Order: sequence, then C-alpha cells, then structure tokens
Amino acid sequence: MAGGGQLARMTQQAAIGLGVSLRVLAAAPDDAAAKAVSDVRVGDDRARDDLLAFAKGCDVVTFDHEHVPGPHIREVEAAGVPCRPGPDALAHAQDKLVMRDRLSALGVPCPTYARVPESAPLEFVEEFAREHGRPVVLKAVRGGYDGKGVWIVDGADGAGGDLVRRLAGEGVALMAERHVPFRRELAALVARSPYGQGAAYPVVETVQEGGICTEVISPAPGLPDDAAAEAQRLALTIAAELGVVGLLAVELFETDEGLLVNELAMRPHNSGHWTIEGARTSQFEQHLRSVLDLPLGSTEPTARYTVMANVLGGDDPDVYSRYFHVMARDPAVKVHMYGKESRPGRKIGHVTALGDDLADVRERARHAADYLRWGRKAKHDPDGRRS
Amino acid sequence: MAGGGQLARMTQQAAIGLGVSLRVLAAAPDDAAAKAVSDVRVGDDRARDDLLAFAKGCDVVTFDHEHVPGPHIREVEAAGVPCRPGPDALAHAQDKLVMRDRLSALGVPCPTYARVPESAPLEFVEEFAREHGRPVVLKAVRGGYDGKGVWIVDGADGAGGDLVRRLAGEGVALMAERHVPFRRELAALVARSPYGQGAAYPVVETVQEGGICTEVISPAPGLPDDAAAEAQRLALTIAAELGVVGLLAVELFETDEGLLVNELAMRPHNSGHWTIEGARTSQFEQHLRSVLDLPLGSTEPTARYTVMANVLGGDDPDVYSRYFHVMARDPAVKVHMYGKESRPGRKIGHVTALGDDLADVRERARHAADYLRWGRKAKHDPDGRRS
Repeated sequence: MAGGGQLARMTQQAAIGLGVSLRVLAAAPDDAAAKAVSDVRVGDDRARDDLLAFAKGCDVVTFDHEHVPGPHIREVEAAGVPCRPGPDALAHAQDKLVMRDRLSALGVPCPTYARVPESAPLEFVEEFAREHGRPVVLKAVRGGYDGKGVWIVDGADGAGGDLVRRLAGEGVALMAERHVPFRRELAALVARSPYGQGAAYPVVETVQEGGICTEVISPAPGLPDDAAAEAQRLALTIAAELGVVGLLAVELFETDEGLLVNELAMRPHNSGHWTIEGARTSQFEQHLRSVLDLPLGSTEPTARYTVMANVLGGDDPDVYSRYFHVMARDPAVKVHMYGKESRPGRKIGHVTALGDDLADVRERARHAADYLRWGRKAKHDPDGRRS
Repeated sequence: MAGGGQLARMTQQAAIGLGVSLRVLAAAPDDAAAKAVSDVRVGDDRARDDLLAFAKGCDVVTFDHEHVPGPHIREVEAAGVPCRPGPDALAHAQDKLVMRDRLSALGVPCPTYARVPESAPLEFVEEFAREHGRPVVLKAVRGGYDGKGVWIVDGADGAGGDLVRRLAGEGVALMAERHVPFRRELAALVARSPYGQGAAYPVVETVQEGGICTEVISPAPGLPDDAAAEAQRLALTIAAELGVVGLLAVELFETDEGLLVNELAMRPHNSGHWTIEGARTSQFEQHLRSVLDLPLGSTEPTARYTVMANVLGGDDPDVYSRYFHVMARDPAVKVHMYGKESRPGRKIGHVTALGDDLADVRERARHAADYLRWGRKAKHDPDGRRS
C-alpha cells in the first residue's frame, strides 16, 4: 500500500487476519502505518523511483490516498505489478473535472459545475454566481482532501476576488460549483473486485464541521429505502463504469430534488471506519479482498445503529491520559488511535459506539471523541449523560 | 510481549487500535508475530540476557506463553519494568503441582491428583490406578501445552510402564490425576487489572480432538445459568487469589458432580479467539487493557452464538488457494491466518462464524476450517450444506 497514514495502519489490522503481508511505502518511519507494519519502505510515493522500488516484489499495489501520479502507476503496471485501483479509474478521484465530466456523461446527478478559465477567472466566477446563485463553491481541480482545496465565496468581489487572484497566481486550476442547498450529506461505500463482484454497505450520514467529517451514522437515520437503494445503485454503477477495483466511497448531497454526487474516493474512507465493528466485514478487509480478487465479504450490519466520531487533536497532546475516563465511563465504546502526533484539529483517531437507541449511541460516541480531545474541558459535561 | 506466536500476532491487531506500540521478543524474524509488528527483537525469551535486553525501555512486559522462567521475570521487575502477570501468579501456570496445591487450598474443585515420586514411580502409578480407577492421566509437571506433556495410561504395566520408565529416565517430573468421566470441557475466561477490576466472558464449550482444541462454542450450549455463574465465579476468584494481572483462562471439566478445574493459562487463550468478532471487546484488547491498567472493556456478546474452529495444517500447504471457495460459499465467515508455515496437524489459523442458529453456525465454522485444511478432500462435502 502506497501511503503510510491511518488508512494503511487500519488495513494492517485486516491484513494480519487474512494472513496477508502488507508492505507500506511511508514518507517517514514514524508514519501512522509505518509504526504498525514490519515491512516498511520509506520514500516519496509520488516519486517514480521510490514507487517502482517499493512495488518490486509486490503481488499487487494499492493506495491509501489518491495523489500518486498516474504515469508512475502505469510504469509500475508495465513492470508487471498490477495496481488496484488502476490509473484510469484513479484519474476520476484525482481530477475533479475529469470526474464531473465522466459522471455527467453517465447521467449521474451532480451539482452544476464549470471549469474556471485561466484567462479572466474573476469575471467567470462573478458570472457563475449571477447565474447559479451565491455563494459559489470553488474547488482546486487536483490535490484537495478533507476540506482542503475547497472554498466558499460570495463572488469575485472582496475576499472571493482576493482568493481567486491568489490561486490563479499560484497556477492552481479551479472549478466553480453551485452551492447546493442540501439537507445533509450521505456516503455510499461499495467494493468491486477485478472479477466484477460488487458489494454495498449501508448508506451512512456524514456530519461535517468546518469541512472536516466529525461523525458518521450508520445507517443514515430516516433515509427512505428507495433513496438508500438509489445511492447504492449509483455507487455500484460508478464503480463498474469507471472500472474501480477496491473500495469506492461516493459522497452525496441529499437535496429536495434528490441525490447529487459530491466527491469520490477510491480507497478505505473515513465514512467507512464504522464498519470495523459495525459490519461483518470491515472496509479494510473488504479493500484487501477486492484488490486481491478474493470473494467479497458480507456487508451486513452487526448492530441496529453504529456511530463513528473522529477524534481531533486538542490543546493537550497526551491523549492516552484521557483513556481512563473514556473507558471507565463506557466499557463498550471502541477507541482507535492512529499513533499520530496530536496537533489541534488534526484527525488522530476515532471512536465507535453501537446499539439500538440512536440518541444514546450518538451521545456515547460524541462524548468519547470530545473527551479524548478536550478532557475535562469537553463541551459535553462528562457526567451530563446522567444529569 | 515475550513470545512471537499467533497470540502476540493477534495482540498486535488490538494494539494498533489502542495506539499502543507493541514490541515482540520472537525466536525468529519469520515468527507469526514478528511478521506483523514493526518493533521486533529476535532472541530466546527463556534466556536471561535476551529477556532483559528486550524489556529495556518497555512500559510493561507480558507474555504469549507461560515458559519464561520466574527468576528472569524477577530480574526484569528488579530492573524497573513491571511484568504482568507477575512471576508469583505465573508460577501457577508453569507448574501444575503448584497450581493444584494452591487451588486445593482455596477449596477449588480439582481432579484427585498426586505427585509421582522419583523413587518407585511405577509402583506409585499402579497404586494410584488401583485406588482411583483406570485409566490414569499422567502429566509433566512443567512445560506442557496443547496436549503435549499429557498421557493417558492404563497403569504401570505394558505401554504405561514403558512411558513412566522413559520419562523418569529423562528426569521429567510427573504427576498422576484421576481420569475424570466428564460430559464435556468448558472454559471460563476472565481478565483482571492491577487496580483489581475483573471482567468475565461468557463460559464456552471447547471441543478437543486428540488433545488439541478444534472448536469453541460461545456460550456453552445448554449450560444452566447457575453453572455458568459458578464457572465465572471460580475463574474470578482464582484470578484474584493468585494475583493474576491480564487474562486468565480456566479450563474446566463438566461432570455429574459439578465443575472441576483442569488447567490454567494466564494469557490470551485459544478458547477466547471467538471474542475477536463475538464479544464487544476481544480478549487481545482486554489483555492489553489489563496489563496497561486501563479500565476493562465490555465482554458483552455481539451475537447469540459464536463458533470458532481451529484451522490445522493439511497435506497441501497452500492454504491461500482455498480462500476462494471458503469466502465465496460464506461471505460472513471470518478467516484468521497466523502467517505460519503449514505442517500437518499444526494450528495455522482459525475461522469464526456467528448467528442465531447454533447448528448452522457450527456447520459454517466447521466447513470453513475443514476446507482450509483439506480442500476438496474435506470430510464435509463442500456442497453438503445445500444437499
């Protein structure tokens, strides 16, 4: 797996179970995954030579992010090592314009979008705002993740204008999208194997704060069966049409007019961390089964509701001192830490709670995540549950 | 963790989740756990110097077997690194006579037993057989595991006599035990933290073939509530009285006269592998929480029945070629392989199935384990389930 972050780290847990030897290409020996794997190569997974050296001797190469350049992936394949997902599929997760154009051609509903031309970008953004309403969503065509590379601007006046000028000056290719008035965000996670088998997980609701996913609820509460089936059908169709092998996470807007596709990711995804405990087969095992062309595992949920909350870094980096309270208060909450240095706002772990009562399950997950971040300063009173 | 077998390997899966850095002392770099951990020391965990060098810098040392000599453990503790379980508790898992004497003093029911004296062992065994019935169980006082170090003899004539003579000649300390007419074997798994918190898992039935555990059923079918509570009470009492920190597995005989303690193990145990999927907290996470003095996790089952079947090596060592059938037939069965070279009869992995219908769950686990061992030659017809 190219990339040494938490996705590779959690993939290692599944690899151990399957008896699969996972080699990781990490940027540093103390990367999240590098600390959890015996076969670590340290290097730059976007550099041709490092990638080729890493891939040599692997049965198959996969990725824990979408930033490995396609031409390098093609060279790995030319050297005889299959890459899954392959470069043609991955292009749709690397370039938002390629993705939007392809999905539109497939008839998949997306927000109205347009490429911002290099000449006269300010005029274009202002015109887009006049036509499709304010605010406007600006996105870097390539390289964004976790809310990075996405900006919401009123138009080409003031701050919006300054931003567009700065990005244009830096040579960042931009696109504009209509700011969709959505009710909430959903995610549909599916897997597809080279053999062509597909498997769909229950559709989840993702709760975002400041562009970062903070909470995932499975299944999405109150989502009508036909909408859930439609989201799964969309994701399976996209996976098949784009030739995805491995996992595909489709981020969706639920709107009054139906579902719109927001983003694609072709790897284990934050919206699927709940599956470690909440589904019979975790997304990490499923990704391995897919890329190894093994039969896919059951996506059956193990509980009525599963809620995952991301743990972000707080002021005090000593997260472990806060385990005591979290574990003593709730012996059934599951803590997953990524072995990453804690920095304010950085995703350093997640927690999962399961049960029949959604409000209770959400409170348990929320409390644990907040406490691991803030300790006694957590906004949620540690004893609030009982008060 | 001293020892690099599958127990350390599966402990690593839990350590990754907890964000704990697991260092393993393995006999060889291709040991089951060594292949799954980044921080491996290669050495002999029964050798003083190797153990001390390994322990240096650890916050706490624990074990994946019971064969580390007590004096070496004391030296590690003297060097400032706590060992959990400690040498005084571990002595009861290392020496069956120490264990029997202590349990008897605590009033814990055990089979009738006696030390076989070095002088006139043959006469003693024959006398024991006359008094307590035939056959007689002979056990090596130290060093046995997985049916090794246990023999069933008729008495001191013929093969029994030859065995006693050979073992006496090798200087193996022996004890004799009454061959208990048990209905079945059970196991009670509990955890205890230094703080003194205890947690008990559901009592399971263990099915043995030729001295090797082949199947574990949780909970033990048809076990009356009072007997289950008694088994848990016994195990928690033993853990507290012996000062165990970490996991304690108590193997029990269910007899017409009640429960008798057979063996103790102070570590994650084969009878607890079902907890990875079948309990809210796996035994491996629980062991880490115990030895790190964290609050213990919930032992609540996640399904009505969970069945674990051990995968033993068959004639054809290429287990992975048999994944396809096993995973395609049953997408919900969970496969755990230990990365060990397959040899006939060797424990190389296990499978787990969960569900409401015990006969179905057993058949699914049994079939998967048999197929991984034998392939198409499995005694169970691969398609038998549907016939």
